[in-house]
Amino acid sequence: MASCSIERITASDLRYALPAGAGSDAVHTEPEYCLAVTQLVTAGGKISGTGFALTLGEGNRLVCEAIEMLARPLKGRPIDELMADFGRTARELADDPMLRWLGPHKGVVHLALASITNACFDLWAKSQGVPLWQLLLDLEPEQLVAVLDLSYLDELLDERAAIELLREGLPLRAGRSAILRHGYPGYDTSVGWMAYDDSKVCELTKQAIDNGFSAFKLKVGSADRTRDLRRAAMLRGCAGESGTIMFDANQQWTLPTAREMCGELSKLKPLWIEEPTHPDDMMAHAALSREIAPVKVACGEHIPNRVVFKNYFEAHAVHYVQADCTRLGGVSEFLTVSLLAKKFGLPIVPHVGDMGQIHQHLVLFLHIALGNEALFLEHIPHLRSHFAFPAELDGARYRTPQEPGASTDLKELLPHGHA
Amino acid sequence: MASCSIERITASDLRYALPAGAGSDAVHTEPEYCLAVTQLVTAGGKISGTGFALTLGEGNRLVCEAIEMLARPLKGRPIDELMADFGRTARELADDPMLRWLGPHKGVVHLALASITNACFDLWAKSQGVPLWQLLLDLEPEQLVAVLDLSYLDELLDERAAIELLREGLPLRAGRSAILRHGYPGYDTSVGWMAYDDSKVCELTKQAIDNGFSAFKLKVGSADRTRDLRRAAMLRGCAGESGTIMFDANQQWTLPTAREMCGELSKLKPLWIEEPTHPDDMMAHAALSREIAPVKVACGEHIPNRVVFKNYFEAHAVHYVQADCTRLGGVSEFLTVSLLAKKFGLPIVPHVGDMGQIHQHLVLFLHIALGNEALFLEHIPHLRSHFAFPAELDGARYRTPQEPGASTDLKELLPHGHA
Repeated sequence: MASCSIERITASDLRYALPAGAGSDAVHTEPEYCLAVTQLVTAGGKISGTGFALTLGEGNRLVCEAIEMLARPLKGRPIDELMADFGRTARELADDPMLRWLGPHKGVVHLALASITNACFDLWAKSQGVPLWQLLLDLEPEQLVAVLDLSYLDELLDERAAIELLREGLPLRAGRSAILRHGYPGYDTSVGWMAYDDSKVCELTKQAIDNGFSAFKLKVGSADRTRDLRRAAMLRGCAGESGTIMFDANQQWTLPTAREMCGELSKLKPLWIEEPTHPDDMMAHAALSREIAPVKVACGEHIPNRVVFKNYFEAHAVHYVQADCTRLGGVSEFLTVSLLAKKFGLPIVPHVGDMGQIHQHLVLFLHIALGNEALFLEHIPHLRSHFAFPAELDGARYRTPQEPGASTDLKELLPHGHA
Repeated sequence: MASCSIERITASDLRYALPAGAGSDAVHTEPEYCLAVTQLVTAGGKISGTGFALTLGEGNRLVCEAIEMLARPLKGRPIDELMADFGRTARELADDPMLRWLGPHKGVVHLALASITNACFDLWAKSQGVPLWQLLLDLEPEQLVAVLDLSYLDELLDERAAIELLREGLPLRAGRSAILRHGYPGYDTSVGWMAYDDSKVCELTKQAIDNGFSAFKLKVGSADRTRDLRRAAMLRGCAGESGTIMFDANQQWTLPTAREMCGELSKLKPLWIEEPTHPDDMMAHAALSREIAPVKVACGEHIPNRVVFKNYFEAHAVHYVQADCTRLGGVSEFLTVSLLAKKFGLPIVPHVGDMGQIHQHLVLFLHIALGNEALFLEHIPHLRSHFAFPAELDGARYRTPQEPGASTDLKELLPHGHA
């Protein structure tokens, strides 16, 4: 199928200003949502695969340049052949000898790998004319495992064990497929940005409840601890005793402060406390996980690769696994981390650096193929007008996407006349 | 002192081809040594501070671009004022809201911070007319701690504890200062690059012994395990029973392979086995540290920041701490990690991403101020012709550098007529 060879590779640096206060947290005070976009165009421009990574500012340009360097070996490759053993390619790209020193497997070069990989999966699904979730479900366990780079996981998850995990789920898939008709809930992160004042948080939470949401997240980690505690109690009040609330400190606290604040905030019975301290401080996360039980620790948006996740799992340092295919090396490494989490019995609730566009597919696959509870998926609607097929919710429930691909097409990058 | 304000900031992408086989290891087969150089030029071009980070290929360009973005706030700052509380600036740069997402505190942006920070220290020392080691020794404990960013270390090393560690060493400094006259040994990494054939390794080791060296490192992690074992035994033979040998796998092994190979290699009584597996796999390093005792694990050249080092120390995952001021956030974070290692009683033996130029100063400071055993410092001479003041050895002993600054000036960047 010569028409599905990758003929042209482009990187685009797209930046979107947010409404005042939106996206603000303890660490990122005035973020700009930026996408480092990879496009893989097939011969004759017939199909275009789009992938991206998120960043929060002018550094986005660096990721775009890394994409241009890293993606060169994909030129001329037929997409079917490439994806037949994409795990090998993913590993080769991750270990590019000219770029590996810059990570390895983290930072700018790994964000570039995420963007490229996501474009490959989008192109693959489009070339088959199916949505990404369908493509993944249609693969045999062996085919699925062939898109993964399992290196450095050998003692826990080799190829055979990964295939076995998928095979065990096959007889259970039919029973889990009702999710395709009924969807699954979103949770609303956009009620509780750091810069929003109390009345706005309250008002947005009430609106969200009216729209059917029952789970809400609040940014904490303010320099003013009494503000954090006041707002947290207020959110519990707005959400009611039966509502699900989560607190997100965005890495702001030191371990001693995290201990104090998590102790106080736990009294409000949140489902989780997210990124209580520096994402590299696994031992601190493990200590906090022990101390705040039965409240759980959630993290992942800054965990760069499967090896760090493996360590977090082994150290019991996280419960809710917020893997993100725009931080990890794309859909491929996201799936690897999901298999590993399954092995440890931990639930995946993705962080949506992609605004949920790709993850809405992945949640369906994880639920049906691995039995991961589709508890809910983060909902951040600020960029929805820019996507050709934005994630759609019925009330507060994600609707199953039907268009071919990974829902990553951006209006401004569509060929003229397609927008 | 207006003439010592930073007037101009430049980033230069310097690349140096190596002789055939030099620098090769299990992961980097044909490296090019690249320096991402920051220059801070004072008013009238009177003094120029030079710093750099090492990378191994074309990605060096990305670090240079990150330097240009990250260094902007330094423009116009008088160097004395800047360094009076550099810890605050280091933290602000590390948390730049436009770039932080790309790490945080790792990868391209953190390499850029290393380069910038090293240039600041070079400029500071030159502005005082003293070599870096002298500048650091002349600082009061409070002044030294003011150049450090101790955030996220609070439970182990706050400002007071850091000052106390330095203060304890003050009465012992005189007794440790003989090192300034007698130097300290180098160890030779350049005998054992991966691509060198057996006879070359043997010949180079003999030459090194003739030059006074008694410690040698061999690259292992080859796809052919019998080759590794044969060469390792050969090196033991060349070095003799009293020689010190080390093996470096450059992250190549999985944990099961590392277990087998470390078991075999330990029989040859190396001082350490270096980077036995992926640098993010702290739990694997901890397991191997237990299993290969009394042989030690060494690592650090890919540990990006003080938080990861803190975790390694807490987990007993490393013994020889190969911190590198061109991987960490420069001289400042190197000193922070050194204080932390002191707290854990672990020896620092720097990895020389700087070819030993800056670290030759730091080894002197660590020995005199903290009592860190100046066991030896890695010696890699391939770039020495490019430095204005290359590290000098008397036989196999590092000679104390006397020129002002951090020995980072590169001939090709000197103003015309100074080369």
